[in-house]
Amino acid sequence: MDGYSAFMLVATAWVLMMTAPALALFYGGMSRSKSVLNMMMMSYVSVAVVGIVYVLWGWSMSFSTGLAGGFFADPFELFFLDGLGGGDYVAVAFQMTFAIITAALISGAVADRVKLSSWVVFLPLWVTFSYFPIAHMVWGGGFIGEHFPAQDYAGGTVVHINAGVAGLVLALIIGRRIGFGKEPMKPHNLPLTMIGAGLLWFGWYGFNVGSIVFAGSTEEEIVAQFVSETGVTFLNTTIATMAAIIGWLVVERLLHGKATSLGAASGIVAGLVAITPACGAVDLEGAIAIGAISGALCAWAVGLKFKLNFDDSLDVVGVHLVGGIVGTVLIGLFSSANAPGGVDGLFYGGGIDSLVDQVMAALIAIVWSGVMTAIVALAIKYTIGWRVTDEAEVEGIDSDQHGEGAYDLHTSLSGGGSSLLATKTEA
Amino acid sequence: MDGYSAFMLVATAWVLMMTAPALALFYGGMSRSKSVLNMMMMSYVSVAVVGIVYVLWGWSMSFSTGLAGGFFADPFELFFLDGLGGGDYVAVAFQMTFAIITAALISGAVADRVKLSSWVVFLPLWVTFSYFPIAHMVWGGGFIGEHFPAQDYAGGTVVHINAGVAGLVLALIIGRRIGFGKEPMKPHNLPLTMIGAGLLWFGWYGFNVGSIVFAGSTEEEIVAQFVSETGVTFLNTTIATMAAIIGWLVVERLLHGKATSLGAASGIVAGLVAITPACGAVDLEGAIAIGAISGALCAWAVGLKFKLNFDDSLDVVGVHLVGGIVGTVLIGLFSSANAPGGVDGLFYGGGIDSLVDQVMAALIAIVWSGVMTAIVALAIKYTIGWRVTDEAEVEGIDSDQHGEGAYDLHTSLSGGGSSLLATKTEA
Amino acid sequence: MDGYSAFMLVATAWVLMMTAPALALFYGGMSRSKSVLNMMMMSYVSVAVVGIVYVLWGWSMSFSTGLAGGFFADPFELFFLDGLGGGDYVAVAFQMTFAIITAALISGAVADRVKLSSWVVFLPLWVTFSYFPIAHMVWGGGFIGEHFPAQDYAGGTVVHINAGVAGLVLALIIGRRIGFGKEPMKPHNLPLTMIGAGLLWFGWYGFNVGSIVFAGSTEEEIVAQFVSETGVTFLNTTIATMAAIIGWLVVERLLHGKATSLGAASGIVAGLVAITPACGAVDLEGAIAIGAISGALCAWAVGLKFKLNFDDSLDVVGVHLVGGIVGTVLIGLFSSANAPGGVDGLFYGGGIDSLVDQVMAALIAIVWSGVMTAIVALAIKYTIGWRVTDEAEVEGIDSDQHGEGAYDLHTSLSGGGSSLLATKTEA
Repeated sequence: MDGYSAFMLVATAWVLMMTAPALALFYGGMSRSKSVLNMMMMSYVSVAVVGIVYVLWGWSMSFSTGLAGGFFADPFELFFLDGLGGGDYVAVAFQMTFAIITAALISGAVADRVKLSSWVVFLPLWVTFSYFPIAHMVWGGGFIGEHFPAQDYAGGTVVHINAGVAGLVLALIIGRRIGFGKEPMKPHNLPLTMIGAGLLWFGWYGFNVGSIVFAGSTEEEIVAQFVSETGVTFLNTTIATMAAIIGWLVVERLLHGKATSLGAASGIVAGLVAITPACGAVDLEGAIAIGAISGALCAWAVGLKFKLNFDDSLDVVGVHLVGGIVGTVLIGLFSSANAPGGVDGLFYGGGIDSLVDQVMAALIAIVWSGVMTAIVALAIKYTIGWRVTDEAEVEGIDSDQHGEGAYDLHTSLSGGGSSLLATKTEA
Repeated sequence: MDGYSAFMLVATAWVLMMTAPALALFYGGMSRSKSVLNMMMMSYVSVAVVGIVYVLWGWSMSFSTGLAGGFFADPFELFFLDGLGGGDYVAVAFQMTFAIITAALISGAVADRVKLSSWVVFLPLWVTFSYFPIAHMVWGGGFIGEHFPAQDYAGGTVVHINAGVAGLVLALIIGRRIGFGKEPMKPHNLPLTMIGAGLLWFGWYGFNVGSIVFAGSTEEEIVAQFVSETGVTFLNTTIATMAAIIGWLVVERLLHGKATSLGAASGIVAGLVAITPACGAVDLEGAIAIGAISGALCAWAVGLKFKLNFDDSLDVVGVHLVGGIVGTVLIGLFSSANAPGGVDGLFYGGGIDSLVDQVMAALIAIVWSGVMTAIVALAIKYTIGWRVTDEAEVEGIDSDQHGEGAYDLHTSLSGGGSSLLATKTEA
Repeated sequence: MDGYSAFMLVATAWVLMMTAPALALFYGGMSRSKSVLNMMMMSYVSVAVVGIVYVLWGWSMSFSTGLAGGFFADPFELFFLDGLGGGDYVAVAFQMTFAIITAALISGAVADRVKLSSWVVFLPLWVTFSYFPIAHMVWGGGFIGEHFPAQDYAGGTVVHINAGVAGLVLALIIGRRIGFGKEPMKPHNLPLTMIGAGLLWFGWYGFNVGSIVFAGSTEEEIVAQFVSETGVTFLNTTIATMAAIIGWLVVERLLHGKATSLGAASGIVAGLVAITPACGAVDLEGAIAIGAISGALCAWAVGLKFKLNFDDSLDVVGVHLVGGIVGTVLIGLFSSANAPGGVDGLFYGGGIDSLVDQVMAALIAIVWSGVMTAIVALAIKYTIGWRVTDEAEVEGIDSDQHGEGAYDLHTSLSGGGSSLLATKTEA
């Protein structure tokens, strides 16, 4: 076995781990203690449902022959991986994990109020009408790749803009939580969120470096070239994220007086999101710039929901939509011919062509995802409905939807022997 | 260094991580808050004790020359890896991690009531008389491999049936917790359990894909064939687990009205257990079938302990024994000549031979593990004893055995500045 | 891509993961609930700040041309990786993660009382004057490598002695927490600490095995030799850690009557620290001896702070300084010509030369780190100051520095539906 194949096995496991448990922890810690299990379940269920759909028609709708001018690909041509062999299966699994996490990301926008059954219905519909088509348009030789050959290494459009727009649409259609804007809805367990952010970063090397390995080929490239490309991708991903943490914390301190741990965790994600499309397109200066700008801008953008009064509960819009646009568009300014992508952006003397392609790709993804998500979300709203009852929402969705409570800590509140003795009478 | 060697380094670290911290979290979250540390310690101590035993006589008892008709291998021939060199050490470490997790899995059956010292005595005895012999029988060219050449890629018999039977025997010999069946013994921290399940899944690619890499050889196989085999193993492991989550949640909803997060976490493990022996034996349809059947059946099986009144505290029997049998036996039905194993099962026109081998392998493992575990467990019961005092069990085993409490959260119950102020007088 | 490059990508991600989230969890769980977020932030901020500094002048100060007799390297020669290409970037990122975790390790000595802004100022100064010079002296062909060619595979001197001394100096200069020695300052969440210890162990294979891969080269070595060296390193790391767990728990039981989960977690780190410099220098017997000695000695050493009355809050001195010295010095006794290092120590008939080199390397690192840390720490003390106000320290540094509380669990204390109902009136 060659190193290429060995790394792809690892990268695929990493990206799967990003959804379960990493994203589930990141979101779970941010939700309230009465809804953490439901929040985590939305990620875990996304893994199961989207994964099975992906081997059935997801791969085919992403990478088979284009239909309808390159907006869709044929769902039947490679149905259930027909005609593929084991040598292709890791590539399939790798791409599957991208569809999974994109769907799971959306759940943060509608925390605490959605029926599990409605989410289970939404998942296959949404990936079929929004994710697979955009993946085909960008990575499968479809419309965007053909007409606006934008650089999107690991999913600025396909993953983050797509999820961010879908989150916004769902938040608008499903509506606000009871008490939104009136009572504090603080994260119930920030250490969980920080574990999640750390594991997301860890797994993101599968996302970004894996994507450049996926796009390459041992046959076509000489080894040294390939090693160089993975090195650029790896280091760009790393330093952009570091710059984003700093960007977020600085803005937060300026705006609110204190740098928070939630800000550090969110800054990590904001940086990773923005460098995702750009990881192979820019040099080190560009990576730091994109990371810092994304961190700073997202730190400001997450406050918009209170001004505009939409309940994007865990900031899918403020981080993934804003960060995804930042990364996708800034490629047009910062991309460098010295990077693996080999294209000079506006700031590097390459003219405006790259910028136009990047903006067009972002716009098409925004419109497509917005329309498709709205259709699916409205269809669910007017049939089975989205929300749990008001009483269930107030009492706690964990109890209502799952019959569970997350924590049962009453015997150890003071953590020591003496208080444990006190529990004897209860036993 | 080739990709084969690079991947085995990763796979070995993954499987070690499965026990500490992943299994420790999975089990720890399910136990009560007064016993979570003890539960986690049973895993961590298994790592230390079984690991040292493995380099002393474990590898030798698994892979040296067979004795006694192939039921044992010589513990002295390769004692302390005598005669092996650094080129073999990753293979040793890889197999070591399997012995470790198998022993640690058993601890879930006897949560909350066992002395740490008794567990420390049990570990080397159990792996010596149950784990190493079965590993030799199945993977080391011993009795089962010779007479019933069953397919068991990563440990349906050696790991899961073995641990499941041992858990059942220990639960019966050690007895029920005080209050079992009368008071609720709910998981105290389900997010911990979900982290654990997610990390187990992540590490399981080391388990399954690592096993097919371990069994292969760069010299003997052409690269393309090898890459294909790892692809099949990887994707089978993935989709079987997804199907098992769905299977468990559906049955749970039918039986109890709600799909729980504990069910999703348990479904992950049930699917992974069942696909473990089968990951290289079946095609995609077979993987989905085995996963779905295992998830559904285990979801039902975990209720048996209440009907039959044995206290398998964290469902080692319901998940590992049942799931291990499901995976091992269904290979006889679903195995496909198109998979790396190259054998057609009953449903694929291959006749009954494979089924007979699989059933016999399962039966031998059940009997061997049952008898050996009973001997070891009874020897401990009538010498140093297994259980902590009743008072310690009621007060909490963490305090009694470790002098610790897991949590000391009293200064931050409301998580905000105002309540922190209130603690000043305490300081 | 070859296996060498594939593994280095993984190893680098692993070591980054060791700081965030692993070390942050290990330390966070050990601190009090009113300061867990600040503790975790010290790790996360170290990642961001040290990472950016590393690409600017850190790599250059470690691996460019030596100045001043080999105590420093030129910070400008390779400033911002000038002249390096993508093929070198993973090596840079790998070394960057070592600087990051070394700085983050120090934070455990000063938990609960330091302003975030002072920590942010300390980080670039400390790595510039202590870490980069010692890295250059040991690994970059500088003073120690030239005059006392000690074996230090992955950082016994550069990382652990360096961080341990810095922790001691900071603890002395910054002073004790209010209430130290008078009130219990127990870990607030031991399961977090155990997750952290488990993930640290997992990532440490990147640390140790990655270091031997980093030091080697596919061009210079034949594959079999290389695979053998990684095997020795991997297995040594594994069994030394297992022996250290046992060593710690035995000493703890003898000294205090009970084996604790904090002891198991600390034993893991003590073993890993001690085997870090020695992982390529010793055979299996040596690895077990070094691990057991380190575990036992550190278990005793962590009690010294109470006798000597310095507040090394989370035992950076007791584990990293003591463990680092144990590992570095014992190489002089236990190193074996059969190990990759190829040098016989005193116990293996190799005379006293190796021991002298090891002791001298340790001493130079201790003196250098002590002096440099003192200068930096005193400069901060007499300018911006180190500590939060007394009131903030008592009320909780999370609230004061970050405006956050870690947990908001009040709605789910009993974890079930009935108590969730009780929260309705609050909503």
